[in-house]
Amino acid sequence: MSAATDAFVSQNRDRLLNELKEFIRIPSISTLPEHRPDIDRAASFVADSLARAGMEHIEVIPTDKHPLVYADWMHAPGKPTVLCYGHYDVQPADPLELWTSPPFEPTERNGNLYARGTADDKGQMYMHIKAIEALRAVNGKLPLNVKFLIEGEEEVGGASIARYIAEHADKLRADVALVSDTAMYAEGMPTLCIGLRGLIYAEIEASGPMRDLHSGLYGGAAPNAVSGLIELLAKAKDDRGVIQIPGIYDAVEEPAPAERESWSHLPFSEADFLAREVGSGALIGEPDRSVLERVWSRPTFEVHGIAGGFTGAGSKTVIPAQAVAKVSFRLVPRQDPEKVIAAFRDWVRGNTPQGIQISVRILNASPGLVVNPEHPAIRVAAQAFGEVFGKPTVFIRSGGSIPVVGDFAAHLGIPTVLMGFGLPDDGLHSPNEKYKLENYYKGIMTIAHFFEQYGAGP
Amino acid sequence: MSAATDAFVSQNRDRLLNELKEFIRIPSISTLPEHRPDIDRAASFVADSLARAGMEHIEVIPTDKHPLVYADWMHAPGKPTVLCYGHYDVQPADPLELWTSPPFEPTERNGNLYARGTADDKGQMYMHIKAIEALRAVNGKLPLNVKFLIEGEEEVGGASIARYIAEHADKLRADVALVSDTAMYAEGMPTLCIGLRGLIYAEIEASGPMRDLHSGLYGGAAPNAVSGLIELLAKAKDDRGVIQIPGIYDAVEEPAPAERESWSHLPFSEADFLAREVGSGALIGEPDRSVLERVWSRPTFEVHGIAGGFTGAGSKTVIPAQAVAKVSFRLVPRQDPEKVIAAFRDWVRGNTPQGIQISVRILNASPGLVVNPEHPAIRVAAQAFGEVFGKPTVFIRSGGSIPVVGDFAAHLGIPTVLMGFGLPDDGLHSPNEKYKLENYYKGIMTIAHFFEQYGAGP
Repeated sequence: MSAATDAFVSQNRDRLLNELKEFIRIPSISTLPEHRPDIDRAASFVADSLARAGMEHIEVIPTDKHPLVYADWMHAPGKPTVLCYGHYDVQPADPLELWTSPPFEPTERNGNLYARGTADDKGQMYMHIKAIEALRAVNGKLPLNVKFLIEGEEEVGGASIARYIAEHADKLRADVALVSDTAMYAEGMPTLCIGLRGLIYAEIEASGPMRDLHSGLYGGAAPNAVSGLIELLAKAKDDRGVIQIPGIYDAVEEPAPAERESWSHLPFSEADFLAREVGSGALIGEPDRSVLERVWSRPTFEVHGIAGGFTGAGSKTVIPAQAVAKVSFRLVPRQDPEKVIAAFRDWVRGNTPQGIQISVRILNASPGLVVNPEHPAIRVAAQAFGEVFGKPTVFIRSGGSIPVVGDFAAHLGIPTVLMGFGLPDDGLHSPNEKYKLENYYKGIMTIAHFFEQYGAGP
Repeated sequence: MSAATDAFVSQNRDRLLNELKEFIRIPSISTLPEHRPDIDRAASFVADSLARAGMEHIEVIPTDKHPLVYADWMHAPGKPTVLCYGHYDVQPADPLELWTSPPFEPTERNGNLYARGTADDKGQMYMHIKAIEALRAVNGKLPLNVKFLIEGEEEVGGASIARYIAEHADKLRADVALVSDTAMYAEGMPTLCIGLRGLIYAEIEASGPMRDLHSGLYGGAAPNAVSGLIELLAKAKDDRGVIQIPGIYDAVEEPAPAERESWSHLPFSEADFLAREVGSGALIGEPDRSVLERVWSRPTFEVHGIAGGFTGAGSKTVIPAQAVAKVSFRLVPRQDPEKVIAAFRDWVRGNTPQGIQISVRILNASPGLVVNPEHPAIRVAAQAFGEVFGKPTVFIRSGGSIPVVGDFAAHLGIPTVLMGFGLPDDGLHSPNEKYKLENYYKGIMTIAHFFEQYGAGP
């Protein structure tokens, strides 16, 4: 039967791509209030696509922020139920001047589709819908029960879906969740991700003098809000990248020896990683750990942005009164976000420079997670993935955060298959984000294989 | 005769104020290119005012940037020549939301005139012109020879006037320069400033990865441009405010014991300075030095502004590729700006964090200065100032920078009378800048007295 869905995908390539492009053209940037109408258009687009694929009980569910989209198809009694998750919101596109083609005009180049959201996550979540469409077109029905829950706040903390899952566990009951929002380890290498880092995102504001002061008349005696914030943030890590906030490493678990061993066999060139993905003069980080360990199994403290004082053209000699930074911690399994937040607040209090007031606002917090690779759904997914791509599936972790996976575990008691078709150089959150066209088609095939084989049982 | 000019000022208060208001309404912000037409309007306004006061040979002199205004009146043979300097350009008005009344609509409140440029420097430079007008109205002529050279780039480095002075030393020949661009030590206390700090203003740019990176996928291994810049800048000073850049203090001269002693007798309340002027939780700075020493006779390193990464609403999890900061050194007499720049560049090279590239661009540089209080023009100015305000004149320094004073010394070989009528809480460069109305009128009187007495000879 899998051959039939493969053929369906091959025969419908142009239409499947054109529909995706239409989806991507909607600039559904969740963090910018002026894009709220686009958020609503994207939610409707998802609902319509689910309906056309034959899904039932379609709902666009209002929330405090951006709507959720729900659908189900439950006509396979005795078969397992898969809960498909994805997000229709995207990151902002700035800096705009660095895009080769417009961020919301999907453009084919070098076998890729370039636009914001192609890989993260519109291109990937849309494959789930298209796999359903392929299975229904070929068989007239689905091989198992399926639910969809798609959100529009993944890039801004996902508060609404977290609350919805907590309050609708019965409605969402399933055997496993399926998420395609991660990357393959390397081009052509089928990959399942079995570990994710968590995230605490915070805003830090510093105030110094009551107003911007003339740096000639007050310089040397008046505190400077920018300098105060800089001084504090610079203390958070030493020059090797080791976090200096007491207690941060307390609950950090080392990866199991077998897992660490398997990572050492993955093809990885630090020189390529540096030159082709990062593009800086050197890498940084804890010197006694491999790069994969640093990004997969170690917590981080990162400054995402900072602003304060005068930065226009020319010169202005002020001692700034205010400064603000956005920072985050990435968390690994077993670190308790609440404990990390408390440790951070204590550290800020203890290290606030003289004359400066610092306030910390936590925007969101989620824990890190690991999934057992022996779960039946994971085994079937690895099998299907390997079939379509013609290579054995490898198991990796991701340094990124998908908070909803924690909500599925906590409230539905189910593991998540993290079956991602992105590539490491897709440029998520960056200018010129792209998604490999071939992975879009093969991804739809893989997901259809997974549904069929998981439905067929052991 | 002085009584006559005093009476002229008293009888013409309203007109003298209305003309100043008209001048201040021109938003001649020199650092913002969109205000270029206002710069030209302000230059014309100055030229017209000089003509109406009876000055001759009026020129609006084009430069590479903003025009200079020149005028002279040379009909007092055998008498000294005073070169009057001022600037018609102003600082930007942001942050706009903190102004009580609009920044370019001069508004009378509590005996003050509120608007950008009231104290720095339109309100002060305009007094020179009005003093000329008063003397001509009362005597039909001036008691000495006068030249004016007014610039429109003081807030952006003053490159054009520096070049003009260097190239036109003959034309500008004078016995002394008169600058009103400083503050009185305290309300009602006549003050001559005999020392200024110099300024080196620089822009520092940091680059890390070749593009903004996803902080989940790369965090822990990729360098962060904002963190790199923060780490560098935080090393520039220790937590007491002592600059850590080797060589910076090498040429710094301690104030003479007599000068330091006289400062200790000036009325100064650290508590008031903190609460009413600075408004932060505490002061900072070298702990073994008084506040006046710190701001008058010690070099500083200040961060005026910083920007990098994402600082919009909500959260974005990027590792920023770029960051920029504006910084300055204030220099005291005998520090060589070129040596400080070289020391700074060396230090930046030696402290650039791993994986980060740093570039430094120097926007301008001028040395610190001291003037001999025994010069005849200074003694006469102290006498005139004390007469009008009814108290003995005190001698202070200012922590600010007036680069043109250095150009007068270097190219014309003349000292400068720094006779300022501002007050310490005028809010230069800040929202709600103001100038005390009474000081405007008394300032005109004082300058007229100075011209008469300096013209009368010893």
